[in-house]
Amino acid sequence: MTVRAILTLKGHDCVTIAPDATLAEAANLLSQHGIGAVVITGPDRRVIGILSERDIVHQISALGAAAMNQPVASAMTREVVTCTEDETIPQLMQRMTEHRFRHVPVVDRGRLAGIVSIGDVVKHRVAELEREHDALKEYIATA
Amino acid sequence: MTVRAILTLKGHDCVTIAPDATLAEAANLLSQHGIGAVVITGPDRRVIGILSERDIVHQISALGAAAMNQPVASAMTREVVTCTEDETIPQLMQRMTEHRFRHVPVVDRGRLAGIVSIGDVVKHRVAELEREHDALKEYIATA
Repeated sequence: MTVRAILTLKGHDCVTIAPDATLAEAANLLSQHGIGAVVITGPDRRVIGILSERDIVHQISALGAAAMNQPVASAMTREVVTCTEDETIPQLMQRMTEHRFRHVPVVDRGRLAGIVSIGDVVKHRVAELEREHDALKEYIATA
Repeated sequence: MTVRAILTLKGHDCVTIAPDATLAEAANLLSQHGIGAVVITGPDRRVIGILSERDIVHQISALGAAAMNQPVASAMTREVVTCTEDETIPQLMQRMTEHRFRHVPVVDRGRLAGIVSIGDVVKHRVAELEREHDALKEYIATA
């Protein structure tokens, strides 16, 4: 099973913000959508960064209330780990748990095509393992 | 496998904060420890709340910079879902993914005894499923 299966279920929508928006605007966006990260894109929908709840909390810790007026570009992660729709779920899950990413933008020919969270990946991976497990047990029971 | 197996590996330490600390202090604590949530305890180590990165971002979204000086008690979740060391990992994982909690304090005779994150739970559950899977395949191959 690949990332495509996740996006087929959850859709290709992905909340984005411009690099010159403020962290206060980014906090509003995360809060309104009930999400943990927002992708920063250039005019051609190329991914130029990602900003998480954790990045906002770090900036508040470092700068206090002044963090609110800082541009998103000052706090975002610039070296974004992305995946394609063809990546398998176990592969992606291993990359995410190893490097402790919670969100990975999906890129198609250089352009943002969706986003998957560790929650999406885990849900699919566990369901997959449980199905395989049941199939093996069934095989043993009827062999 | 139960929650005890997770705590045996990661230990019983759990970062806590008092209910009258400010959100700025809580943000510092999360940032320093690289964690996503802090437990609020009373003097007897009873759990009275939990505060996550998301709760801080919500308060910033609602109040702007003024959020920084608010007490933790004003933003924390008061109805905390807890578990015991005897709860099985699949059970806890189901509760966490259903209700979308990322952190669950572990309680022993009413007192805080540790904390498990969705990352801890998933790592153990996937490892467990993969082991069972390999055992079943081995059984089939040698039967």
